[in-house]
Amino acid sequence: MAVLGIDIGGTKIASALFRENGDTLSRQNDYLEGRQGAEVGEQVRGQINNLRKHPGLKEDKLLSIGISVPGISYRSEGTVWAPNIPGWENYPLRDEVQSFIGDIPVNIDSDRACCMLGELWKGSARGCKNAIFLAVGTGIGAGILVNGKILRGNNDIAGSVGWMALNRPFDKKYTGCGCFEYHASGEGIAKVCRAYLSEQENYRGSLAKKKINEISAHDVMAAYKVGDSLAGKIIGESVEYWGMAVANLVSLFNPEKIIFGGGLFGPAKALLPDIRKEAEKWAQPISMKQVRLDSSALEGRAGVYGAAYLALKSPG
Amino acid sequence: MAVLGIDIGGTKIASALFRENGDTLSRQNDYLEGRQGAEVGEQVRGQINNLRKHPGLKEDKLLSIGISVPGISYRSEGTVWAPNIPGWENYPLRDEVQSFIGDIPVNIDSDRACCMLGELWKGSARGCKNAIFLAVGTGIGAGILVNGKILRGNNDIAGSVGWMALNRPFDKKYTGCGCFEYHASGEGIAKVCRAYLSEQENYRGSLAKKKINEISAHDVMAAYKVGDSLAGKIIGESVEYWGMAVANLVSLFNPEKIIFGGGLFGPAKALLPDIRKEAEKWAQPISMKQVRLDSSALEGRAGVYGAAYLALKSPG
Repeated sequence: MAVLGIDIGGTKIASALFRENGDTLSRQNDYLEGRQGAEVGEQVRGQINNLRKHPGLKEDKLLSIGISVPGISYRSEGTVWAPNIPGWENYPLRDEVQSFIGDIPVNIDSDRACCMLGELWKGSARGCKNAIFLAVGTGIGAGILVNGKILRGNNDIAGSVGWMALNRPFDKKYTGCGCFEYHASGEGIAKVCRAYLSEQENYRGSLAKKKINEISAHDVMAAYKVGDSLAGKIIGESVEYWGMAVANLVSLFNPEKIIFGGGLFGPAKALLPDIRKEAEKWAQPISMKQVRLDSSALEGRAGVYGAAYLALKSPG
Repeated sequence: MAVLGIDIGGTKIASALFRENGDTLSRQNDYLEGRQGAEVGEQVRGQINNLRKHPGLKEDKLLSIGISVPGISYRSEGTVWAPNIPGWENYPLRDEVQSFIGDIPVNIDSDRACCMLGELWKGSARGCKNAIFLAVGTGIGAGILVNGKILRGNNDIAGSVGWMALNRPFDKKYTGCGCFEYHASGEGIAKVCRAYLSEQENYRGSLAKKKINEISAHDVMAAYKVGDSLAGKIIGESVEYWGMAVANLVSLFNPEKIIFGGGLFGPAKALLPDIRKEAEKWAQPISMKQVRLDSSALEGRAGVYGAAYLALKSPG
């Protein structure tokens, strides 16, 4: 038996054919290069058809297909919403794939849910029943595992942690992204840095040498690592927000593990002890003692592993 | 068939015998009057034995017993922790009840979980799959329903919402109770009021006439309702915290309903539209549109109904 996992990102599609034990039989990666709507659907079809030709599939039957999308999967309708792919506002991805794949089951879930499932299958969450994958990249989202199953909520949009309210009073700048995401996502950290730079005219550190509109969170992290004072202030604040968010997830969910992933963790991995220290101030103390903070073991491959695990575990 | 629900509170024990359809056959309420440890166990035994003698049980077999405790139920051990009952730190309630009740199944859960289940069975959450009971009394806790089941977490302490971090930076006064509970529980509102009164020497409103150490959240609510300025400030802040907490629950869980209960809702019911307005600023906007805020339909009886529903739904 084999399963096919497809991880559709904002800029590329990564697919892989797996044996049930997690061994990879074949993989394919393609960039979207500006494709939109049905063109992206066509690219997914191409990858599925290529991987199905793999000679290993003569002996291994293709059991099912799992797809990770960068947004929301509305499971009862089979449609997806992916804000970074134009034309995927309410895109009928499941019907489309089903129409050429025949009676092989197709399961679709959000990238944050798939990253959680990938870590559960082959990464940092192996053996967990209650765990959270906190994806900190351009934005912030969470895949939440409750008693072995992904938390979906009433309409498949549970886990929108970027909207967590952590800093009163409300400020208009939080509209459209959420308070936690504003302060502690990749995009947020870059924004906060630009705001500080335009205020602090006497600052002469490494960040002042960059064009202000091109500064990224990775630049801030790099400056932080060489002891830059402004970067230290910004990352110190981010640690405070990450710690408060961890505390809230711990008090609410009493999880075994919280796994930091996404583009920023990555370089911010070394901050986990500081994040824990901040969380310990705020969280329910018994629950806090029970939780482990960890970083993603699969990193960029968490989504494709998770898509395959989705296929493996819910083939119907 | 009949089930027996027992709601052990910090000051009294309320039991009732129900038919499967929710009709009450008989009930009994007793005050703890300072009883501790095994004396409380003895009182529980007395209520069970009295209710078992009800003549209706000749035709209806007693299917199972459910018990709500004011604290934590450790389900694998069958022990309970109830901070307001001396001697109930790690009390073997399940074994004790089981020892005299024979082979009738006994299920125990926390009061916040039971209130959620009571509202699900016969109250404001009927028909819901994903809902949250927010209990705002002396402290703050939540019973969280995820896809029809109570969220427990790794060690039965999920739902500790009183520890939610909402107001940075961390302040030592949050140690021991949590930030949300400090600002917006009954005990918290009284504490905040006392702190303001000791600062504002020129205040001459109705709260100034009370003995400062005897002021309760109910006094503050009463003063608020007659337009007192200090009470207006305090309750306005509480509304902000309640709104932020609702926002966080909405963004994380995407529930159909959040039900406010506990001693303060009650008198603070009329604030639900203001709480919603505050939450709308912060929460994931699609999820926020889908949620309804409501107050407890069962009020003080939610726990005993929930204990009975616990018995009915998980008899094994």
